[in-house]
Amino acid sequence: MTVANHFELLGQDGQARVGRLATPHGVVRTPAFMPVGTAGAMKGMHWREVRDAGADIVLGNTYHLMLRPGAERIAALGGLQKFTGWNGSMLTDSGGFQVMSLSELRKVSEKAVTFRSHIDGAKVELSPERSIEVQRLLGSDIAMQMDECVRLPAERGDIERAMQLSLRWGERSKRAFETAPEGCMLFGIVQGGDIPDLRHASARALIEIGFHGYAIGGLAVGEPQAVMLAMIEEVAPILPLDRPRYLMGVGTPEDLLEAVARGMDMFDCVMPTRNGRHGMAFTRFGQINLRNARHIDDPRPLDEQSTWPSTSDISRAYLHHLVRSGETLGAMLLSEINVAYYQQLMHGIRDAIAQGRFADFREQTLAGWAQGDIAPR
Amino acid sequence: MTVANHFELLGQDGQARVGRLATPHGVVRTPAFMPVGTAGAMKGMHWREVRDAGADIVLGNTYHLMLRPGAERIAALGGLQKFTGWNGSMLTDSGGFQVMSLSELRKVSEKAVTFRSHIDGAKVELSPERSIEVQRLLGSDIAMQMDECVRLPAERGDIERAMQLSLRWGERSKRAFETAPEGCMLFGIVQGGDIPDLRHASARALIEIGFHGYAIGGLAVGEPQAVMLAMIEEVAPILPLDRPRYLMGVGTPEDLLEAVARGMDMFDCVMPTRNGRHGMAFTRFGQINLRNARHIDDPRPLDEQSTWPSTSDISRAYLHHLVRSGETLGAMLLSEINVAYYQQLMHGIRDAIAQGRFADFREQTLAGWAQGDIAPR
Repeated sequence: MTVANHFELLGQDGQARVGRLATPHGVVRTPAFMPVGTAGAMKGMHWREVRDAGADIVLGNTYHLMLRPGAERIAALGGLQKFTGWNGSMLTDSGGFQVMSLSELRKVSEKAVTFRSHIDGAKVELSPERSIEVQRLLGSDIAMQMDECVRLPAERGDIERAMQLSLRWGERSKRAFETAPEGCMLFGIVQGGDIPDLRHASARALIEIGFHGYAIGGLAVGEPQAVMLAMIEEVAPILPLDRPRYLMGVGTPEDLLEAVARGMDMFDCVMPTRNGRHGMAFTRFGQINLRNARHIDDPRPLDEQSTWPSTSDISRAYLHHLVRSGETLGAMLLSEINVAYYQQLMHGIRDAIAQGRFADFREQTLAGWAQGDIAPR
Repeated sequence: MTVANHFELLGQDGQARVGRLATPHGVVRTPAFMPVGTAGAMKGMHWREVRDAGADIVLGNTYHLMLRPGAERIAALGGLQKFTGWNGSMLTDSGGFQVMSLSELRKVSEKAVTFRSHIDGAKVELSPERSIEVQRLLGSDIAMQMDECVRLPAERGDIERAMQLSLRWGERSKRAFETAPEGCMLFGIVQGGDIPDLRHASARALIEIGFHGYAIGGLAVGEPQAVMLAMIEEVAPILPLDRPRYLMGVGTPEDLLEAVARGMDMFDCVMPTRNGRHGMAFTRFGQINLRNARHIDDPRPLDEQSTWPSTSDISRAYLHHLVRSGETLGAMLLSEINVAYYQQLMHGIRDAIAQGRFADFREQTLAGWAQGDIAPR
């Protein structure tokens, strides 16, 4: 069966790709980084700031939202965009990953995952069909198939079993998605751990089923960066050129740069907001720990050349004070600064690919991070 | 000695007054409510939101700032406005009140208060002279004399001793303030607990010393509202008409309305932000607890007629979800909504006084709060 295509590949520079993905809520410029608004909120940020920072699309967590406030409730309130006030595109995960990492007493069967809510202990069943139903109720633009993700390192037998189960769940997810409105998308997820032939088999079987886009899952789960990049190199060449490719749960700015260089288009990670809450700033000088005493008397901003006001105007001394004092404003400002840095990085990546100078951009950006922060005063 | 006057009384309606106070950082429209930015930050709010909400002036806590990051450090960084990025006027308290409520092992002598920092246990001495020095280093527009505040109920002997000590500290504060730049102000503080003749004596002695403005302190410390209002009625008629009058640490919206009706001009309280962090919203329907289950499916905003976007656009269901989920955004939005409501209330009060319809405004506003929230759906 033919699956509609909403992705347009605008250009390529080596393996790196620049494109646009049309969703019911707008256009997503790729390579795209999706900030994670876990439970219907971007931690420490107003939605308008996420938009101003340059994000076209954010990720919402099905697991959190189905448990509270509930998918049927959000549907009755007009869907996730109306509910939250976020006016861009939205991708939802399947809920499977959080079931594995957050809930108790989970039991995986062919039919579904059964677990107890980490909020109230209620017993909940999540099947591939229910996951799609929940994501439809949330009204997301891009839904993800349910899969089983194995933490690495793991035995081949366990990785293969989970990969095969994920394929069968992928087929069921696709059938469940058939009634979704035109324009909405479903992505399949390549599994197979760190074993190349399993990754190949997974990718080929998914393409056979046919999805709007393809994700690589089961990475950024504890393995070294080299393993992650090696797996991308195994999978990306197999994936159809005309479909978007999403690397799930990744990552550091360097991860993004390297994954783009290997042909990936979309990314998500809690790192910009989580590290912001812990006093860390992402900048073109690398990651800066504002808790460090070197900043206590420093009137200089994080990066006077940044076009993001909080990055170019607010002193390191003030940020240091806010972080040390545990003031919410510190977490708010650093989350905003980090989400904006990630978006500016993606913006730079897109421009560089479009202009055929991605290799230079990558080298210069890596050199800036390697050089580190400006000298203390 | 004559003390310069920067206050202009623009109109009166009954005892209620409307005016303008010129500070080195701008004009403060009175009656004015000062949101409290305790340690150089307004909890859960960006400074631009405090400004957008309509605040001309905020309060900074000398005690917190002198301990961290330190007054000399803030001075070296250009003063509190430059340090924080708040671009309006700033009043600082003397630090005395927080010494009494937050620090350990404090000892009050004629000369100074000695205490241990609640942050690192360091022994610190705060005298009236050092308090003024710290407030000058912070660069505040309005400094407060150091005083001793007695928690009510208390014995007459204790109240009188503290009131007399506060007067001597007021004289010393004034001498210490003599070198302050033109335009900066020092307010004296009327003490005397709930005992009318002590309040009278305190006010008269302070006027004899001469200050830029006069505060009523030692209220909102546990006594019933009726006692607070009775004390204002004792003190306000004694205070010079041409000087600003500041009721410290007050209060609820109703407290503000009643204190304005009795001739007070300035107020401060942590209530809008603190209650916001606890899921409470101040509205023209009174205080609304967003944690309450009645809001869970309610798509309506808090007040569709409000001119503050978060109040008129965001659903109660979403606010309820954020509060129940412990999302920072809930505290952020409700803090902003509450600070904006307080400012809109003051705006309404000022217009009503200027137009000679304060009694009507007061009656209608009280009736709105008494009527309570809109009916559940």
